[in-house]
Amino acid sequence: MKVAVFRKAHFNAAHRLYRKDWSFEKNDEIFGLCNNPNWHGHNYEIEVKVIGEVDKETGYLIDLKILNEIINKEVLNRFDHKNLNLDTEEFKDLNPTGENIVVVIYNLIRAKLDAKYELVVRLWETERNYFQFPA
Amino acid sequence: MKVAVFRKAHFNAAHRLYRKDWSFEKNDEIFGLCNNPNWHGHNYEIEVKVIGEVDKETGYLIDLKILNEIINKEVLNRFDHKNLNLDTEEFKDLNPTGENIVVVIYNLIRAKLDAKYELVVRLWETERNYFQFPA
Amino acid sequence: MKVAVFRKAHFNAAHRLYRKDWSFEKNDEIFGLCNNPNWHGHNYEIEVKVIGEVDKETGYLIDLKILNEIINKEVLNRFDHKNLNLDTEEFKDLNPTGENIVVVIYNLIRAKLDAKYELVVRLWETERNYFQFPA
Amino acid sequence: MKVAVFRKAHFNAAHRLYRKDWSFEKNDEIFGLCNNPNWHGHNYEIEVKVIGEVDKETGYLIDLKILNEIINKEVLNRFDHKNLNLDTEEFKDLNPTGENIVVVIYNLIRAKLDAKYELVVRLWETERNYFQFPA
Amino acid sequence: MKVAVFRKAHFNAAHRLYRKDWSFEKNDEIFGLCNNPNWHGHNYEIEVKVIGEVDKETGYLIDLKILNEIINKEVLNRFDHKNLNLDTEEFKDLNPTGENIVVVIYNLIRAKLDAKYELVVRLWETERNYFQFPA
Amino acid sequence: MKVAVFRKAHFNAAHRLYRKDWSFEKNDEIFGLCNNPNWHGHNYEIEVKVIGEVDKETGYLIDLKILNEIINKEVLNRFDHKNLNLDTEEFKDLNPTGENIVVVIYNLIRAKLDAKYELVVRLWETERNYFQFPA
Repeated sequence: MKVAVFRKAHFNAAHRLYRKDWSFEKNDEIFGLCNNPNWHGHNYEIEVKVIGEVDKETGYLIDLKILNEIINKEVLNRFDHKNLNLDTEEFKDLNPTGENIVVVIYNLIRAKLDAKYELVVRLWETERNYFQFPA
Repeated sequence: MKVAVFRKAHFNAAHRLYRKDWSFEKNDEIFGLCNNPNWHGHNYEIEVKVIGEVDKETGYLIDLKILNEIINKEVLNRFDHKNLNLDTEEFKDLNPTGENIVVVIYNLIRAKLDAKYELVVRLWETERNYFQFPA
Repeated sequence: MKVAVFRKAHFNAAHRLYRKDWSFEKNDEIFGLCNNPNWHGHNYEIEVKVIGEVDKETGYLIDLKILNEIINKEVLNRFDHKNLNLDTEEFKDLNPTGENIVVVIYNLIRAKLDAKYELVVRLWETERNYFQFPA
Repeated sequence: MKVAVFRKAHFNAAHRLYRKDWSFEKNDEIFGLCNNPNWHGHNYEIEVKVIGEVDKETGYLIDLKILNEIINKEVLNRFDHKNLNLDTEEFKDLNPTGENIVVVIYNLIRAKLDAKYELVVRLWETERNYFQFPA
Repeated sequence: MKVAVFRKAHFNAAHRLYRKDWSFEKNDEIFGLCNNPNWHGHNYEIEVKVIGEVDKETGYLIDLKILNEIINKEVLNRFDHKNLNLDTEEFKDLNPTGENIVVVIYNLIRAKLDAKYELVVRLWETERNYFQFPA
Repeated sequence: MKVAVFRKAHFNAAHRLYRKDWSFEKNDEIFGLCNNPNWHGHNYEIEVKVIGEVDKETGYLIDLKILNEIINKEVLNRFDHKNLNLDTEEFKDLNPTGENIVVVIYNLIRAKLDAKYELVVRLWETERNYFQFPA
């Protein structure tokens, strides 16, 4: 049976929920306050769950230094203190909803994580609204 | 692969754990302090997890306004500031244990939630005791 | 200069906010949902702050075993899994608002705590509503 | 002796720390990542502490409905889902540091709160950085 | 469909991450600060998830008194206020990493828990690092 | 009126509560489980509160970079992943109770903090036991 290791991290960012190809009225109807053209922001909290076999010799599933480096390089350096819509490649043409952000973060970490591990990412937008991929 | 959206909410209620068809002594033996005939209460916290496909156009799995309306109407309006045993249809003849409450809340939300979504409900009775359905 | 020691504890109870000498309508106007005649309840969390000089020999301000005994005997045994209005002497004729509960708990602990210590009590009724005495 | 009542609330906003009369380089030196010209954001959490005498008749220090109305109208409606620098009068020419925000919120609530109460406001910018006024 | 019941508990312990058959230098390279020969320690938090059918008569999945007795006897009495490496049989020759501790706790509880229940254990070493078995 | 800025940080350490000049029996009587000769440990959480005037130009009370450097250098580098009794000068002959640790941390930060600021330190040993200096 496999063990899971969890690591939490956080970043602060601004965003706006809208589609460029929709009118302001339609964006307002669907996205409400989140469609503020001057942006709003969040303290995003992420939980990275890595699943695999424990190394018998070290007792580690993964060296947390390695996992932290991936999280810092792929997620925090890219998104912390940024405007997700304006400052990132990932959300230039993708609406930065919690659902889309958690999938983007999953893909960024997945690309750097040894294929022997399974991965699940959870993202808190607020204490009461959060997202997970895969479900 | 599917994404999950989580939404938390809370309500405050009184309850008593007991069976009407048992003696006070038998209820006392099984339910202890929770069998106080004058009731006791909790701050119940619920987490509603909705699983499904993300809408490509909006980037939403479900409009949280709709999910909140279901939670408010089906759960909070029904149970908040109520005596679960005396004030509700659901627990008139069903012992309001955490296990039974979480299944009742699942069924109430399930009946109003689009069938394309999967649903999981978690209920905190205290910070250290909580319940989930399905497991 | 003095040091403070904090100890947290919790209890679950039912209560109703109302005055027996008021009509239901007047109670309803002032206390709203909290005036449910069938009661509602809370997970009450308390924080007991004791201020004084540190004993040079032990490095303790107060032996936490002693403080815990006072909290257990004076507060938890009295209020846990109780109906504050029906099951306690303290709230038989006193409306169990957060303000009144925190003062009652302060007085119960104060009566048992060595006079050389100062005391402050904080009471959480929910995560977002709480009370302190003295202010 | 007086009692204190606490009420928590939260809002999400974007901001940038900088002075318009400084060069980008000087702002960068002093405010670092917080000087991102495209903004970043936070989940701001506020705690409003109101100090006063308990009304003997109701057992309330202040009707929380009244306090909530003040917080909603003066703070949340003004700042929630806003860009503090662009969308508000208060920070048009005032750098929206935690220190300045907490004083502004204090003044907004103070202006609407009955003069018989004392007031203390605490503001969390992140879980690890927060601010209080008066100290 | 099955319900899950969760129960949290905590213990405080000292430990050192190292292999006796490795040089200090090799242990230092792999385990860094956690290899301090004079030990360091943690507030370990555990979550025990028990999955099964709800008893129709009581509305309980498991009597929490029984679950608490197992947790207290098998986990807290064994590990609380202990040096995991020196004071326990379990970690005399097993490196007390989070991964190994969570599997050991799972096995200790599994041996005492009725076979009709499924079991999942989660262990927090810090708020940001935690472990689960099975994954 | 003055503003307060709070900054939280944490470290993990082992310790033992005892006096070298007392018998094991006397230490056991006073310090109980905390007198384990093989040590136990905690996740210590600290909150540093700095009080002063806000700089009109920057809107800062203190540059958090400077405060973080003091906390890292004076507290975390000294105590993180250490045995407080064996690895530190401060507790070589001082019993590392929460009361003594919080005063030691206060003095270490006080010595490096500009005299124009007031300082208050809070230390959590567990979620339910914590300490503050000055009170």
